[in-house]
Formats: sequence, C-alpha cells, structure tokens
Amino acid sequence: MDLSSFITSLTTSFVIFLFLMLVFVWLSRKPGNNVIYYPNRLLKGLDPWDGSRTKNPFSWIQEALSSTEADIISMSGVDTAVYFVFLSSVLGILVLSGLVLLPILLPVAATAHVKPTNGTFSSLDKLSMGNIEVKSPRLWAYVIATYWVSFVTFYILWKAYGHVSDLRATALMSPEVKPEQFAVLVRDIPQVPEGKNRKEQVDSYFKTIHAETFYRSMVVTDNKQANKIWEELEGYRKKCARAEAIFAATKRTGTAEGTRPTNKIGFLGLIGKKVDTIDYCNEKINELFPKLESEQKTTIREKQQAAAIVFFNSRLAAASAAQAVHAQMPDSWTVTEAPEPRQLIWRNFTIKFYERTIRQCIVYVVVALIIFFFMIPIAIISAFTTLDNLRRLLPFLKPVLDIAAVKTVLEAYLPQIALIVFLALLPKFLMMFSKAEGIPSEAHAVRATSGKYFYFIVLNVFIGVTVGGTLFGTLKTIEKTPNKAVHILGKGVPANATFFVTFVALKFFVGYGLELSRLVPLIIFHLKRKFMCKTEAELKEAWAPGDFGYATRVPGDMLIITIALCYSVIAPIIIPFGVAYFGLGWLILRNQALKVYVPSYESYGRMWPHMHARILAALIIFQITMFGFFLLKEFVETVLLIPLPIFTILFSFVCSKKFYRSFSHTPLEVASHELKEIPNMESIFKAFIPACLRSEKFDDGGDQFEDALAQFSRSGSTV
Amino acid sequence: MDLSSFITSLTTSFVIFLFLMLVFVWLSRKPGNNVIYYPNRLLKGLDPWDGSRTKNPFSWIQEALSSTEADIISMSGVDTAVYFVFLSSVLGILVLSGLVLLPILLPVAATAHVKPTNGTFSSLDKLSMGNIEVKSPRLWAYVIATYWVSFVTFYILWKAYGHVSDLRATALMSPEVKPEQFAVLVRDIPQVPEGKNRKEQVDSYFKTIHAETFYRSMVVTDNKQANKIWEELEGYRKKCARAEAIFAATKRTGTAEGTRPTNKIGFLGLIGKKVDTIDYCNEKINELFPKLESEQKTTIREKQQAAAIVFFNSRLAAASAAQAVHAQMPDSWTVTEAPEPRQLIWRNFTIKFYERTIRQCIVYVVVALIIFFFMIPIAIISAFTTLDNLRRLLPFLKPVLDIAAVKTVLEAYLPQIALIVFLALLPKFLMMFSKAEGIPSEAHAVRATSGKYFYFIVLNVFIGVTVGGTLFGTLKTIEKTPNKAVHILGKGVPANATFFVTFVALKFFVGYGLELSRLVPLIIFHLKRKFMCKTEAELKEAWAPGDFGYATRVPGDMLIITIALCYSVIAPIIIPFGVAYFGLGWLILRNQALKVYVPSYESYGRMWPHMHARILAALIIFQITMFGFFLLKEFVETVLLIPLPIFTILFSFVCSKKFYRSFSHTPLEVASHELKEIPNMESIFKAFIPACLRSEKFDDGGDQFEDALAQFSRSGSTV
Repeated sequence: MDLSSFITSLTTSFVIFLFLMLVFVWLSRKPGNNVIYYPNRLLKGLDPWDGSRTKNPFSWIQEALSSTEADIISMSGVDTAVYFVFLSSVLGILVLSGLVLLPILLPVAATAHVKPTNGTFSSLDKLSMGNIEVKSPRLWAYVIATYWVSFVTFYILWKAYGHVSDLRATALMSPEVKPEQFAVLVRDIPQVPEGKNRKEQVDSYFKTIHAETFYRSMVVTDNKQANKIWEELEGYRKKCARAEAIFAATKRTGTAEGTRPTNKIGFLGLIGKKVDTIDYCNEKINELFPKLESEQKTTIREKQQAAAIVFFNSRLAAASAAQAVHAQMPDSWTVTEAPEPRQLIWRNFTIKFYERTIRQCIVYVVVALIIFFFMIPIAIISAFTTLDNLRRLLPFLKPVLDIAAVKTVLEAYLPQIALIVFLALLPKFLMMFSKAEGIPSEAHAVRATSGKYFYFIVLNVFIGVTVGGTLFGTLKTIEKTPNKAVHILGKGVPANATFFVTFVALKFFVGYGLELSRLVPLIIFHLKRKFMCKTEAELKEAWAPGDFGYATRVPGDMLIITIALCYSVIAPIIIPFGVAYFGLGWLILRNQALKVYVPSYESYGRMWPHMHARILAALIIFQITMFGFFLLKEFVETVLLIPLPIFTILFSFVCSKKFYRSFSHTPLEVASHELKEIPNMESIFKAFIPACLRSEKFDDGGDQFEDALAQFSRSGSTV
Repeated sequence: MDLSSFITSLTTSFVIFLFLMLVFVWLSRKPGNNVIYYPNRLLKGLDPWDGSRTKNPFSWIQEALSSTEADIISMSGVDTAVYFVFLSSVLGILVLSGLVLLPILLPVAATAHVKPTNGTFSSLDKLSMGNIEVKSPRLWAYVIATYWVSFVTFYILWKAYGHVSDLRATALMSPEVKPEQFAVLVRDIPQVPEGKNRKEQVDSYFKTIHAETFYRSMVVTDNKQANKIWEELEGYRKKCARAEAIFAATKRTGTAEGTRPTNKIGFLGLIGKKVDTIDYCNEKINELFPKLESEQKTTIREKQQAAAIVFFNSRLAAASAAQAVHAQMPDSWTVTEAPEPRQLIWRNFTIKFYERTIRQCIVYVVVALIIFFFMIPIAIISAFTTLDNLRRLLPFLKPVLDIAAVKTVLEAYLPQIALIVFLALLPKFLMMFSKAEGIPSEAHAVRATSGKYFYFIVLNVFIGVTVGGTLFGTLKTIEKTPNKAVHILGKGVPANATFFVTFVALKFFVGYGLELSRLVPLIIFHLKRKFMCKTEAELKEAWAPGDFGYATRVPGDMLIITIALCYSVIAPIIIPFGVAYFGLGWLILRNQALKVYVPSYESYGRMWPHMHARILAALIIFQITMFGFFLLKEFVETVLLIPLPIFTILFSFVCSKKFYRSFSHTPLEVASHELKEIPNMESIFKAFIPACLRSEKFDDGGDQFEDALAQFSRSGSTV
C-alpha cells in the first residue's frame, strides 16, 4: 500500500465520520428522535435535554467530558464504569507510550541510512523499525522503548485494578438492599431421601448448618410447561392490545363505530376461520388464565429440580455461605453466589456437576475447531490484500483494476471491509456455546463469550494477517534465495503496519461514527413506528436501546490494543491512531452510556479481571514479537528482552493474588457493612420468582408461591 | 547381572531378614526392652503385653492382622490409618495386576522364539518383554496388560479416596472437643491504625464481621527473648534434677552424706569457678524465674506481631470463617484453618504474603538445582553397577574382583548400598527448605518435604538409573551401528529390571527387618541408659519412639510403586517383589503403629491427596514408558495406548473435583455436628499458648496471659 492510498483511506474515513457526526447533531435535536438518542434518560424518567434546547450542537462533547464516574454509575451501573476504566487505562498506556516513543523512535528510523529498495518500500515504512539496519546501535532505542511500554502498562494496570476493586467494594457495601446479596445458588443437590420432598430436604439441610441465618429457600422448578402457557397468554394479551389500538384508530379516522379488526386462526393467520380479534383474544386469555394458574401450582409442587436458591437474612451470612464447602463430597450441594434475578439462566441450574465439565470440554473443542478452520478464509483474504496479488491471481480483473479511482478505493478498503464483515458472523454462535456450558448467569456467559472471541480475533485476525500476508508476499523471493528468508520476514512483518493503521482508522471513524449517529436503530425504529407498532408497548419495544454488548465490544477493543501494542515500537506511527480509537471511543461511549444504553445486568465489575488478563496477554504477544524482530536484526543485546515476559507473568501473578479473590467472592469485610433499612425479606424472595410463575394478583405474588408450597409441604409431610 | 548373583542377593537379604526377625522375637520378650518395643502402649498407659507372656513368639503377626482400622485410629490417629489405606491400596493394585499379568505375560514371553544373543542376556530376561520380537502379535497381550494395570489403579484409588474422605469426615465430626477446630489462623494483618494496639485492631475487626461467634483472639508475639530465658530455665531445671539424682545415687552407694556434684561454670564446663551444681542451679532458677515472668509480660504486651489466632465459639463458625475472603484486598487478613497447637511453626506466622511467595520461589529453584546436580553422582553410580564396568574402568582392582566370593557379594550389593546411603543424605535439608517457605504447620511441612523428595527420587533414582545404566552399557555398540540404537534401547531398558528387583528385595528384607527389630534405637537406648541418663525424664527422652517420618517414608514407598508399576508389564516378575514390599510393610508397620510410634501431629488425612496425586504420577510415567517401549517394538497398535495418559489426567481431575475441596477445607456439613459437651473455651484458648509464655502457676495460665493483656488493653485504650 503506498502513501497516496493510505491518505485516501484516512481521508475517506474521516469524511464519513464528519458526515455521521453532523447527522447526529441534526437528528438528535428533533424531539421525535429522543427515544433513539436519549432512551436511557427517558427510561429513568429524566428530561432528555436536561436544560434548554438552544445549546451548542456540540454540547454533548462537553457533557461527556464533564461527567464524573459517579454519574456513570448512577446512570449505567458499575459494569459501565469499569468499562470506562478499561478504556481510559488503555488510553493512558498508549498516550504515555506515545509521548516517549514518537519523539524518539521516528527520528531514529527516519535518519537511518538504508539502501533504497524498489517499489514495495513506501515512505511510511521509512518511519518504522524495518528501516533500521541489522546490528545497528540505533536498535538500543528500540530495546528501551520496549521496556518503557511494558512498564507503563504495568503501572497503569496496577492503578486501575486497585481502582476497580474499590468501585466494586463500594457498590457491594452500598446500603441499598440488593436481592442477590441475600441469596446463594445451590446446585447439585443429591437424591431426595425417602419420605421427604426436595423443599424439605433443602430446608432441613440449610437449617442444620445455618440455623440462625437461614431465611427460606426457593427450589428451582422445571418451568417449561408453565412458561409455554405464560408466553402464549402474553402473546394473546399483546395481540388484544394491538387490535384494540387499531380499532380505536379506525374509530378516530373512519366511521363512528370503527372497524373491528379480524384475523384468521389457522396456520400463520393465512387460512382458517375469520374471527373478531379482540373477542377471540379475550376468549383465549380467559381460557389460558386458569390453565396457567393450575400449571403454576403443579410446577411449584411437582416439578422441583435438584437446584435451589437459598435466602439468608443478612448479606454477611449469604456471602459467607457462598464461599464455604458445604458437603463432605464437594461435588454435591455446591453453593455459589446468586446472580441478579434478571440475569439468571434458569435452564442451566439443573445441569449436573460432571455434565457441566463435560459440556465445557466439548464447547472448548468445538470453539478451538472453529478458530482453526476460520484460519483458512482469513489467510486467503490477507493474500488478496494487495492489488498486485489480485491482478496476478485474477488477471481477467485487470482492466477494471487499472481505473485509478477503483484502484484507490479498492486498495484502501477492500481487505478491511472483508475482514469486518467476516468478524460480524461469529459472536452469536459463541454466546450460544457459552450458555451451553451450563453457566448460570448472563454476565458470566458474556465473559465466556468475550474470552472465546478474543482468542478468535487475536489468533485469526492479528496473527493470521501478519504471518499470512507476509508469507504470501515473500514466498517467491524466499524460493530463490532461501537464506534470506529471515531478513525478508524482518522487513515484511513491519510492512503490515500500514494495513493495521488503516484498519484501526476505519474502525474508529466509521465504527464510532455509526455508534454515535445510531443511524441503523433510527431507521429501524421509524420503519417500525410507521408500519408495525400500534400500541405504546410495541413502540417502547421498538426503541428499546439494548446494552453495551460487551461480548463483542471488549474483544474488538482488545484486538486494537493487541495491534497497537505490537506495532507500538516497530511502527510507532500506529500509536496516534490507537489513541484516537480509545479517545474517540471514550468520548462517544460516554455519551451513549449517559443517554442511550441501558445495561441488562450488573456484575459489579467482574469483567475487569478478564480485561486485565487479556491486556497482559496482548503485552506478552508484543514482548515475544519484539524478541523475534530483534533476533532478525541480529542484535546481540536482544537477550535483554528475555526478562520482560517473565516480569509480565510475575505481575499477573501478583495482581491475581492481591485483587482477584475479592472479585470471585464477596469479602466478608465488604458484606458486613450496615444496610440503610431492615431488608424486606419477602420482597427479596419475590424478586427471584420467575415471570411465568408470578401470580397475576400482584399483591400476593410471593404468597401464592408460598401457599402452594405450604400446602404441598403439609401434604408431603403427612405422607 | 546373571541368575546366580541375583539368587545370591535374594538369599542373603532373606537370611538377614530372618535373623533380624528372630532378634526381634527374642529381644522383645525381655521386659527391660518394653520401652523400645512397646513405647506407644506404655505412653498410653496400657499393659505392653496385653495378656500373658507365654504367647506364641509370632503372636505379633496375628495381632497386626486382626487389628481393625478403629484400633489404629485410637492408638495412632487418622494420619496413620490413612497411611495404611495407602499401603493396602498399593498392595491391592499390585495383587490385582499380578493375578492377571503373571499367568498371562510370563508364558507369552517365555515361549517367544528369539535368537539367543551371547552373554548379556540372562535367563531372567527371558521372562520379560525384551524377549518379544518386534511387530509380534504377542504384543497384544502387553497392550491389554497395560490397560488392565491402569484400570485396576483407577478402581482402587477411587475406592480409597472415598474411604479416606469418610475417615477424615468421621474424625472431624467426632463429638470430642479439639482446640484447633475452634480457631483460625490470621496472617498478613495490615498496619495498626493510629491510637489502637494490635489486639484491639484484631478484636474489633473480627467482632464487626463475626459479631455473634467471635470468642477472643491471641495475637502472635515475638517470643525469641522469652523462649531463650525459658529454655535456659528449663536447662537449669534438668541440670538440677540430674545433679540431685546423682547425689541421691552417691548417697545410696557411698557415704551417708554422699558427694554433692560440682561443675565449672566457664566455657563448656571446662574452665572457671567450681560450684556446687544443685545450689548453683537453684540459684540460677530463682534468678531466671522472675526474669521470665517479666519477659512474658513484656512479650505479650509489646512484641505483638501482624498475625493472630482467632477463636470462635463453635466449630461451624471457625470452619466457615476459615474459608471466606475477609478483606477487600485478599492479600491482607488472610484467614486459614488453624493447625493443631502442637504442630504450629510460630516463627513462620509473621512472614508476609509476598515474602512467602518469594521464599517459595527461591526454595523451588534451590531444590531443582539440588535435584539436577545430584544427577551426576547417580549417573556415575549406575555406570559402575556392573562389575564388567568396574573391571574395565579400574583395571588395578581386577585381582580383587576376580575372587569368586568378593565378586558375588559386590555384584549383588554394591550398587544398591551405594544408592541407599546416598538417599539418606537429603531429607533433612528438604525439611529445612520446606519450613523456610513459610509454611505454618509441621504436617504441611512434612507434605512439602515429601513432595520434593518424591521428585528427587523419581527423577534421579528411577529415571537416572534406567537411562544412565542403559546408555553407558550400550554406548559402544551404538557407536558401531548407530541405526540399531533404538533396538538396543528397547532391549536394554528392560534389562534394568533385575537391578530394581534386587533393589526392592533389599529394601524390604533389610529395611523392614531393621524396622521391626529396632536394633539401632535399642542399642542407642541401652548406651544412653548406661552412661548418660540419671533422671526419669532423661530416661524417657532416651526411649521416645518418634513418629512415622512420612517425609521420607512416603517418597520411599513411592519410588517402589513407580518401579513396580513401570516394570509391571515389561518384566512382570517384579510384581511379587512389589507385593512382598507392601505386604511385609503393612504387617510390620501395623505392629509399629500399634506398639511403637507415637505420631507427633494429626492432620486428619491431609496427606492422602498428596499420595493419590503421586500414585497417579507414577501411573503416567508407566503409561508413557510403555508407549515408548511399544514404539521400539514397531507395533502399530501402540496408538491404542495414547488414550491412557489422558484417562489418567481425567481421572485425577474428577477425583480432585469430587474429593479434594473437603481435604483443603472443613465442609460445613461436617463441622455442624453436635459436640459431646459444651466446649470449655478457656481451655481451648490455653491450648494455644506457647510453652515459653505459659505461667508457672498452673491454674491461671490463661488468666495470666489475659491479665497482662487486659492491663495492656486498658492502658492502651486510655492513650
């Protein structure tokens, strides 16, 4: 890639970004779009504009910059605040690295006297380490730079881990009553003994051990049937509301009586008898309602599973119980902290201990296979990266490719777009696999998905493109002079820097531009509002903002970190782009966190150790890459780099010892803080009742649950 | 080694064993030796003979065989019972393996038609796998045998782990009050806050978290000074008692007034003023006593360290607290289960978190260096194993070596004795290193030592001898026909089988013979009684039986298991010897457990996971060795062996999941069992007071401790 196509790429990206930003400023000022640009504020019952409408069109930037961490926590939760700690830590690492590396390494490389090679060596490459001669004393600067980047990373990550640990502790010790802090999840309950039912078994077990702190238990039930009826019922309710809205609309616009909507009750509403929708739905609702009630009772009584949620009357008791081995055989009665009610994955609770292990093994194998089979298409993509390759391999395209405009655009974008589209395929599958492991909470499943996606991205995109691109491009030369292979690699790998610079630029300009302007959700919303939504509920569903989507967002950021770190010393020109990515990301996502996204769960920063470990993994990849490059430069002092990966591993070890356990468990010190008020245990219990088992009579939701059980217990104990 | 020297070796060993056994039968019937042969019974206040003296001289065998596990636990504790589970498990593995392998593999090998090679191939080797031709279908029998041994091991270890887990749980849930079950060890206490002392800091921290179950705390103090005075005081007391005994003796034998013993008070009692010992000692005691008392107070008040033992008023509370993360920074306030008072290593309590880690790293490096540097002498020993080598390398010895008797004896014993003496050097150092790691209890230090010794033994003795011996012996042949190297190894490695068979036989005949006859302690005791001991206390010290010494005993057994497993299929003739080792061991040690050894600590079977893991390690070595041998036999079906190590790892994983956590922690289910009586918390607290801080006035030992503290607390709190 030469300089002109590089600049074309950057300029185009920047123009797109400017356009998207103007679109945002223009669209976000229309009140009709408030639900797209301010849903989080709306859902919290706040005024979307928070002041006058005459403000500066770029006031959102000022708002984002002036918002504090406390604002973020109150608007979007601790997990979001931790994500910003992540963004600002990486930003800090890159800025501190750049401040030293750019003024030192660029002049060192630019003033090096290297025999000019023909064609393939662009002016950009002159600024990279590839321009330094073998055994040159200038390489010392690069050794020092490698150390600087490593220690900057250690310093900032250390600060950040401590800060996140404080954030987590503060949130966990807050005087607000949070139901999940009073509960533990019990799985792998052994066979019910003769003459007892599951509920009695659980109660008597926990009463014996936690005599004074046990409050009550909720045995997990097989809700499949109840859920089916409940969903059907909800479906008819929605349909009914929709039909009533349509009826009301026709009344307003047409005749005084209006037209009552009708539908066919056969397959997909296409065949069968025509009925009055409102009447039909009401009839169905009246039919299903008692069915649901009786099914709820049956479920609670007869479909108890070998898992339970056990409630304690203090946070301390629950935190303490969640950390202790309960049974003599630790593969039964496994007790863990309960996740939030809203993020429970009920169907995974009853998967048995060894089945979980087996599922995990299978998932790992499948994911590994996916990662390695995708290697092939990526390798092909990276081989086509250069137009020269295209022209050579597909000669019939030559006339088209030689048009200047097509050439520039293709050269600038083709490989990057192919890559990005390609990457969009995977996350759904990975999430599905992660849930299939038997993970009990959404937050954990997201972490597991993010981890898998990280491996995929780093292995395939980063290593695949680097090695693949280089190997393809230089294979012929190596064929002729095999002894020069090492030298060619040493020059060829840094040559990929420009590819990655444009990749990063495309990602942040176009990616964050789209993120800010929310064009896609906006269009979808307006289409839905126009053609589909009839009721308020449907409308609300249409603009529901969703959450941050950490499962893909974090690995995406991780890829940029890996690229930025790995090329930071080889081609320091990448650092400003990395800074721009994370700076722009911080700014735009700050806006989105304050105004748009609504987190779908809260894990009190448990994502952090995951991020921390992966930043360190990126650092190790960087350190090993550097070691390889220095070897190629035949630089004897390369041995000085050997301690670096060891330092990184030690650092990771110390961090995990110092901080990790308070992320995997709630420390008693934290759980022992006083509450604002005496907790209402009944409402804590009710918070965990799954939707399909909730009674319709709102007041006695828990009572109904309890009644059914009490009745059952009584009948059970008399047996 | 040819057949005749092999038989000589066995016969000599057996004769020595018979002799030692007769010595035991003869000596153990003399009442004067009761303290050597029945110390455990004597210390427990039982009649050593437990019945009439006219019994059969071999009644000990019958007694050992008829003793139950409960007898062992009551006489010697759970740890000893677990050691017998270990012995009988290994015995079971070998017996079950032998029952199938011997009748199948021996005929298969013996009837194989191999071209006879000259000289080096003895008649014993005909029974081994080395006698099978390459690619022979007979190798199928060996594949099946490998699977059989592996699955027998899995089956027996599975049963044993469950059994040991039950033993441990039963002991932990016993209604007896055990002080360590009410306490936890707290280390890494942070800096004392302003205006508080250490004791107040610890008390307030635990009172906040465990408001209802906290009983009181004992801050660990720097006892160096107090201990020094106490030891001096005890020294003078012993000296005084001794002098009085001597004085009484002279009174009886000599003049009515007797001769008062005297001594010089200068360097080593050799120079200086002559004084009357009794008067001098009493004077010193009177002088030191108030010094000790004041030092005790100073220590308790002013030398408090950053560690404490915290007491709870129930076992459940202590077990629960020991498992929970307490502080938000998990590297401070680390809480673990308290070891028994008698096995505390006080000086290690105050070593800080990261210092422990660093110490551990250093110790591992040092031990690794030791293991690898000892490789050299072992390689030399194994090279000298054959007389041929000796004659060739040290030709001046030729005339001596050619005498038939010398030749036979040397050939039979030289290498084995060298090896055994050599192995006796290390354990003390390893124990010292393990304690230097910062381990808080004796039991744990013993496990750590055993682990290190295991690596040493397996790496050096087993692998060193096997590879070393083979390589030296065949180096010249390989030099001439390098392509045959693989074949030579395939035949040469099984040739070491005879060496190991004689090694095992020597170990069990002579080792267990000495163990049973207790000749060394007997001689030392009689010498001491005759020439040194004057008082009852000194006499008791002279016959103190000591404990089992698991730190070296277990790795020793492990070496035999490794050898027996590895050669079980290659040369099944080793199995009966393995059976004899563990059978004889079981029998003789049963006797020793019931009558001789007094365990110095009780860890409730925590040694088992350690043993289990190492038996599995031996199994993996066996499986990999087999894979290597089959490869040498050019047997394609060797691939069938690849799943075996994977099965072993899976088995180990499942076992650790199923059982391990209840060994590393006390399950709450177990801790929640009722006690026989309401525990006397005061006496539990007193049990942990170190000897040098105990008050001389026996009744108020704890009170004095408390008084000093209370006084201090009061004065501290008024600051």
